[in-house]
Amino acid sequence: MTRFEVKILGCGSALPTLAHNPSSQLVDVNEKLFMIDCGEGTQLQLRKYKTRISKLHSIFISHLHGDHVFGLPGLISTLNLIGRTADLTVYAFKEIECLLQPTLDFFCNRISFKVNLIPLQTNELQLIYESHALRVFSFPLKHRAPACGFLFEEKESPRHIIREMIDFYRIPIKQIPGIKAGADFTTEEGKVVENARLTTPGAPPRRYAYCSDTAFFPKMLPCIAGADLLYHEATFAEADALRAHQTYHSTAREAAEIAREAGVKKLLIGHFSSRYTETDALLAEARAVFPNTESAFEGMTLSL
Amino acid sequence: MTRFEVKILGCGSALPTLAHNPSSQLVDVNEKLFMIDCGEGTQLQLRKYKTRISKLHSIFISHLHGDHVFGLPGLISTLNLIGRTADLTVYAFKEIECLLQPTLDFFCNRISFKVNLIPLQTNELQLIYESHALRVFSFPLKHRAPACGFLFEEKESPRHIIREMIDFYRIPIKQIPGIKAGADFTTEEGKVVENARLTTPGAPPRRYAYCSDTAFFPKMLPCIAGADLLYHEATFAEADALRAHQTYHSTAREAAEIAREAGVKKLLIGHFSSRYTETDALLAEARAVFPNTESAFEGMTLSL
Repeated sequence: MTRFEVKILGCGSALPTLAHNPSSQLVDVNEKLFMIDCGEGTQLQLRKYKTRISKLHSIFISHLHGDHVFGLPGLISTLNLIGRTADLTVYAFKEIECLLQPTLDFFCNRISFKVNLIPLQTNELQLIYESHALRVFSFPLKHRAPACGFLFEEKESPRHIIREMIDFYRIPIKQIPGIKAGADFTTEEGKVVENARLTTPGAPPRRYAYCSDTAFFPKMLPCIAGADLLYHEATFAEADALRAHQTYHSTAREAAEIAREAGVKKLLIGHFSSRYTETDALLAEARAVFPNTESAFEGMTLSL
Repeated sequence: MTRFEVKILGCGSALPTLAHNPSSQLVDVNEKLFMIDCGEGTQLQLRKYKTRISKLHSIFISHLHGDHVFGLPGLISTLNLIGRTADLTVYAFKEIECLLQPTLDFFCNRISFKVNLIPLQTNELQLIYESHALRVFSFPLKHRAPACGFLFEEKESPRHIIREMIDFYRIPIKQIPGIKAGADFTTEEGKVVENARLTTPGAPPRRYAYCSDTAFFPKMLPCIAGADLLYHEATFAEADALRAHQTYHSTAREAAEIAREAGVKKLLIGHFSSRYTETDALLAEARAVFPNTESAFEGMTLSL
C-alpha cells in the first residue's frame, strides 16, 4: 500500500510554548509532501524531523491568523536559498497576496521558483487539487476569520488481479493494467470474462480531514463523514468552554462529538491553548465521548 | 555595578540549523532589554531562556535580510496577546514600514500598544537612542544590503564619594548626589573643597559593539575602538574566503583583525554559515589573530 502519513510539526495555538510549536503539519502521500498551515518556526521543525524538504509539493493555509502563516516567509526564503526550481502552490484566502507578495519581492529577489497563490473560498465542499492519486477539498469552518478545513482523499486504488485467473485464461501481460483498472477480458475464442471474476477490489481510498481553527460546527459533518483520521482543534478544556465559544474555538469534548457524529475511524486533537502544560485532561474529556482519540504532539507520525 | 549583559538568542546565518537559530540577541542594561535583530523563532528563544519579555524596551534591526527580521511579526503578535501597553520602538531601514505595517494592520488588529518605526541611515556614527544611563549609536557596515552596526555605550557613572570625607567635613546628605555628579563642597565657614578631594572616579563606561552582517570594513574602527565587547560576524572560515567576499561577509580571521585594530577587550564571533557543523576551526582562526575571542552559542550570556 502506498504511503499516506500525517506528521505533526506544531500543535500549539496563538502563543507558542516550549511544549508546542504553532500550527503546521505534513501530509505525505506516496512521498509527495503537502503542508497544512505554516506557523513561525515550521522550517526548523522540518529540519528537526529530517524531512526531505525537496519533496514539499504545496501548502494549504487554513486561515490568516499569525500562528498559521508566520513561518511562510522563512520557509520560502530557505527553499530559494537551497535552489528549488519547482513551482510552489500556496492555497490560502486571497488577502495573503497583499501580505506575502511584498515580503517575497523584497526578501527573495531572484527567486529560483514560482510561488502560485490560489485563493480559497468558504463555499461548500470544493475540489482544490487533483492528481492521479489524490484529491484535496476545502470546506468552510466557523471561526473569527474566514477559515477552511481540508479533506485529503485518495483516489480509488487499482483492483487486485487474481493470479490464478491470469494463468487460467493466459491473460497477456500488456492487458493487466486495463484489467486492474476495471476492464473485462476477451479470450481468443471471443468469450468475455467479466472483471469481477478476474479481480478483487483494491484497498479502500483513505481520507484525512483537518479542521482547525473552528468553533463546534456540525455543518462540516457531511464533508468529513467516515474519514480514516480527523484532526480537530481542541483548544480548550470543558472548564474553559465559555472562552472557547467567545473565541470561536472548540473544547476537546466538542471535537469528540464531531468525530462521533461524523463516524470517523480515529480522532487526533490539537491546537492546544498555552494555558495547559499537559493535555491529559483534554484527552480524557475527548475519549469520554469518542474513545479512539489521540493527543497530537510535535514529531508524531500517524499512518492511515 | 549595574547590569550590562549580552545574551545570544541566535547566531546562525541565512539557513537555520538545529545548532544555530537565525540572528537575535538581547542587551540587558540594568534590566531594560534591547533586542538586536529578530530572526524567525526569536520569540521561542525568549521563552526557552526564560526572558522577562515585559522588559523588552526596543528593537534594533541591522539590515533587512530575512534571517534578521522574520521573527518580528510573531514577536509583536505575542506582545499584543499578552497585553503589552508600552510603546515599542523598532529602529530599522525605512523599507521595513512597507513590509511590516500591512502585516501588523492585518494580524494585530486592536493592538494594545504603539509600534514606532524609526528609520536608520548609513551616515557616519549617529546617536539614535539616549536615556539617563545609555546611548545607542548606529554606524555603517558594508554588506549587500544597507546595514548598520550598533554601539551601546553606558554613560559616565556617578563618582564614588570618599566616606571619610563626608565625616570629616560633615557633608549634609542632601548634598551628596551633587557631589557624586561632580560638584565641589562649600563648608559652613565658606571654604571650597574641590570635588577631586571628595570623590574617586566612577566605573568607566562600558561599551558593546555589534557588527553583523558585514564584509571586512576597517572604516568602522573609529566607531568601535576600545569597546569592552565586540560581536563581529564570522560567517566563513578562511578556506571559504572567496565566498565570504562574494557575499559581503567576513571570515573569522577578518573579524579578529578588526578586533585587534580596534583595540577591543574581547571579541565574540557569530553568524556562522550552516556549512560548519561546529565552529572550533573558526574560533582557532580568530584566536590566532586575537586571542581573547569566544564563539557565540544560543543561550550564552556575557557580562561586561
